[in-house]
Amino acid sequence: MTRVSRRRLLGTGALTAAGAVVAAGAAPSAAARTAPAGTVSASADVVIVGAGLSGLIAARDLAAAGRSVLVLEARERPGGRVYGMPLGDGTTSEGGAEFIGPTQDRIAALAKDMGVATYATYNEGKNVYYRDGKRSLYATDGILGAVPPDWGVVDLELALLRLGGMIKDVPVGEPWKAAKAQEWDAQTFFTWSRSNTISSGARFLMDAFASSTLSMRSQEVSLLYLLNYAASAGNESTPGTVDRLINTKGGAQESRFVGGSQEVPVRLAAKLGDIIRYNAPVRSIVTGSGGVTVNADGITASAERVIVAMSPAIAGKIDYSPALPASRAQLMQRYPMGSIAKFVAVYDTPFWRADGLTGQAVADSGAIDATFDNSPPDGSRGILMGFMNQANIRKLDAASAADVRAAGLDSFTKLFGDKAADPKLTAFQRWDNEVWSGGGPVGIAPPGALTAFGPALRAACGPVHWAGTETSDYWTGYMDGAVRSGERVAKEVHAAL
Amino acid sequence: MTRVSRRRLLGTGALTAAGAVVAAGAAPSAAARTAPAGTVSASADVVIVGAGLSGLIAARDLAAAGRSVLVLEARERPGGRVYGMPLGDGTTSEGGAEFIGPTQDRIAALAKDMGVATYATYNEGKNVYYRDGKRSLYATDGILGAVPPDWGVVDLELALLRLGGMIKDVPVGEPWKAAKAQEWDAQTFFTWSRSNTISSGARFLMDAFASSTLSMRSQEVSLLYLLNYAASAGNESTPGTVDRLINTKGGAQESRFVGGSQEVPVRLAAKLGDIIRYNAPVRSIVTGSGGVTVNADGITASAERVIVAMSPAIAGKIDYSPALPASRAQLMQRYPMGSIAKFVAVYDTPFWRADGLTGQAVADSGAIDATFDNSPPDGSRGILMGFMNQANIRKLDAASAADVRAAGLDSFTKLFGDKAADPKLTAFQRWDNEVWSGGGPVGIAPPGALTAFGPALRAACGPVHWAGTETSDYWTGYMDGAVRSGERVAKEVHAAL
Repeated sequence: MTRVSRRRLLGTGALTAAGAVVAAGAAPSAAARTAPAGTVSASADVVIVGAGLSGLIAARDLAAAGRSVLVLEARERPGGRVYGMPLGDGTTSEGGAEFIGPTQDRIAALAKDMGVATYATYNEGKNVYYRDGKRSLYATDGILGAVPPDWGVVDLELALLRLGGMIKDVPVGEPWKAAKAQEWDAQTFFTWSRSNTISSGARFLMDAFASSTLSMRSQEVSLLYLLNYAASAGNESTPGTVDRLINTKGGAQESRFVGGSQEVPVRLAAKLGDIIRYNAPVRSIVTGSGGVTVNADGITASAERVIVAMSPAIAGKIDYSPALPASRAQLMQRYPMGSIAKFVAVYDTPFWRADGLTGQAVADSGAIDATFDNSPPDGSRGILMGFMNQANIRKLDAASAADVRAAGLDSFTKLFGDKAADPKLTAFQRWDNEVWSGGGPVGIAPPGALTAFGPALRAACGPVHWAGTETSDYWTGYMDGAVRSGERVAKEVHAAL
Repeated sequence: MTRVSRRRLLGTGALTAAGAVVAAGAAPSAAARTAPAGTVSASADVVIVGAGLSGLIAARDLAAAGRSVLVLEARERPGGRVYGMPLGDGTTSEGGAEFIGPTQDRIAALAKDMGVATYATYNEGKNVYYRDGKRSLYATDGILGAVPPDWGVVDLELALLRLGGMIKDVPVGEPWKAAKAQEWDAQTFFTWSRSNTISSGARFLMDAFASSTLSMRSQEVSLLYLLNYAASAGNESTPGTVDRLINTKGGAQESRFVGGSQEVPVRLAAKLGDIIRYNAPVRSIVTGSGGVTVNADGITASAERVIVAMSPAIAGKIDYSPALPASRAQLMQRYPMGSIAKFVAVYDTPFWRADGLTGQAVADSGAIDATFDNSPPDGSRGILMGFMNQANIRKLDAASAADVRAAGLDSFTKLFGDKAADPKLTAFQRWDNEVWSGGGPVGIAPPGALTAFGPALRAACGPVHWAGTETSDYWTGYMDGAVRSGERVAKEVHAAL
């Protein structure tokens, strides 16, 4: 990697706390020669592409280390996949990343810094299991407790034991280094689950496990990727497990943020102030002998280093010059985003609680695969949230908003009874048609990608560095992983400057 | 789909034979408001993105039908993945798509129209099989004849019989409609081949089959995709087979083009004349109430319809407004390109012919996996061509040109003897670092993609239509498929105008 010499900031313009300079007028560099009239130019030590959690954290840490930073964000808001979905009455409900659980230390520390409190996800009572048109209740935490009490339990438990053993053998964040990496990366999770279970109940829950954690059909996911995903559900002192991924109590769904998870990035962005420029989608990144030029709508910024804080698939839409190394370019073709949507319905009260239900359900039919009680801390109104995962979203591609609403309420009614049929409000957020996310919750690796291209996930390409939850060792796919990736890349860039 | 009303061409500018108008000056439409100074504007009935074979054929057919057409090409040349690689002495050798074989009727007809003759690929003598450090010779045509003469032959033949039976059950071009589509799309070809063979020889050749036809590791490819690929190796009256894919005589490698395959697109582009604009990579496609605006470097073009004649992965780098339907947007994240490179060495004579060799080889080690005799028709000099496929290219990511040359010649020497060590010239073309192709020879579907997203391969999104060899029913991945896709999309657009 060539060390790029430190360059002086441009002489005029508004100097922010973190030192980025923004000047009106034609962009001066050769790389920006064709910038449209009206484009402003700017300069900073580091330009960060994306004001999601990873980009904001990188900005925070680099600014704290005395570097000048400019963050370019395509949307009009910070937070990326963390988003409070408007309910239409002036309030919001979780539209994207939502929960926090044990060992998620870095998002916990950030929330504390930002003064955002947490509270327990409602988890009193029984869960609903809906399969083959029949509704039943179960008391075990997590979707994998939903298997009916017959020999299918043994089948599932044996498979989970085998899975747990394999997970222990995955070097977290570097699954391509596992002794059996080639074998595990050569097959889908579907193939593995069919070879290691015999009951339809266990198989259904294995698919539900992939679908509910990744919003991917188990047919799409490399077994190696899924093993690493579970291995990453921990921290440096506590190994990751499947249980910690899927459970509410003691798991990744244990707690929620007062006011909504978006409070965390929104408050962090407010602290960072005007070093963030919104409505500035980055179109190209040009590396020259004197540094990097980042061309966005309305602004051209020069820097010594650039951090692309986006999922690989969306980072791949930027035009890089000179071309990125083939391993990185082709990795970005091999890390598709899941197809998640969230549907919520707002009721006067969380009526299911009185029925002895947690509000959590798993279903094999209908538009909604899994549900949670998304009510506010005081239970002053009831909010049911349902995930619509890949197979179901595809069926709704051509549906009107009214059709989606009807399908969502039909699911809620089957799962929680007739009281669910008549909410005060509904809202719907699908991520697979969000241009700046391309899907959600996370990019996954299909078979063969990690063993051939995995190291390119994090490896800087000259002065171009990579962040985003997909690059995290622990809690990849979660807010905690995003924060960790921002902290890692800030150190990496600071050391390189 | 909304029918867009026919609009009048702009009044000034150079009117070409096919009627596209190009005018200097600021682009007038709202969609192009931010175009850089110096951008010219243009208008046509149809704008075609990409001057590869599919785009050129669509242009030819639409112009012949009286439509005005403008082709925007990112490179400075036509042909896309069809390319004559300069040898450094003023001549070229095949750097990309090369061969033509039986049932490839549409590329055959086009070559005839263009006055480009064909000749038989050199195929006299024996092939080389290099495995576990041992070199042996075999006489059977195609790489699947290379298994040593022991019981492994039976193993391979039984697996090929099973594969052949499955191939017959795939509706060509619509594999997601196969009765067993879900089962076949849930696994990699690697999983299938390991479940259906027991000998290491047969397994090696199964992997070599995927690698040599797709430049993908068999771990990456959906079984369903591979079955469709073989089913597509035919035409409306002759079902596709594995043999026709892999064979030289009677197969897809049977013949070559006099002067090189690039003669076909180069001559076609010359006939189309100045309706093609080079060095004009398309950055965004904006659909409005009055039609479509296509923004490229240096030119902004308005049209009633646009044809994106590119592989899905590369089409995904364009910014579409409004956003494409999620099924199409996510399909483009799920169709990665292979990692092919071609290495050639030029000798005074095709010396291997005198040794009784065809020049064809398959190898399990070294930089080169498979070879062909790429000499000119008169054998006036000898040219060996070697494919470097995915696993090998990844090892050469950081290699210098000299290192690649040394690795290539080391392979040739092991396969064809010491005479191969000292060529007059060498040349090397890798496609995985070509920005405007993103890899080669073709985009493939990983498991789960075709069954969930397959119909989005060809389905027009409003006025945005799709072409490219990936969208073809027959000979997808080949020049013939590219031509077929251009013919199909031209009919589709003509009918829609």
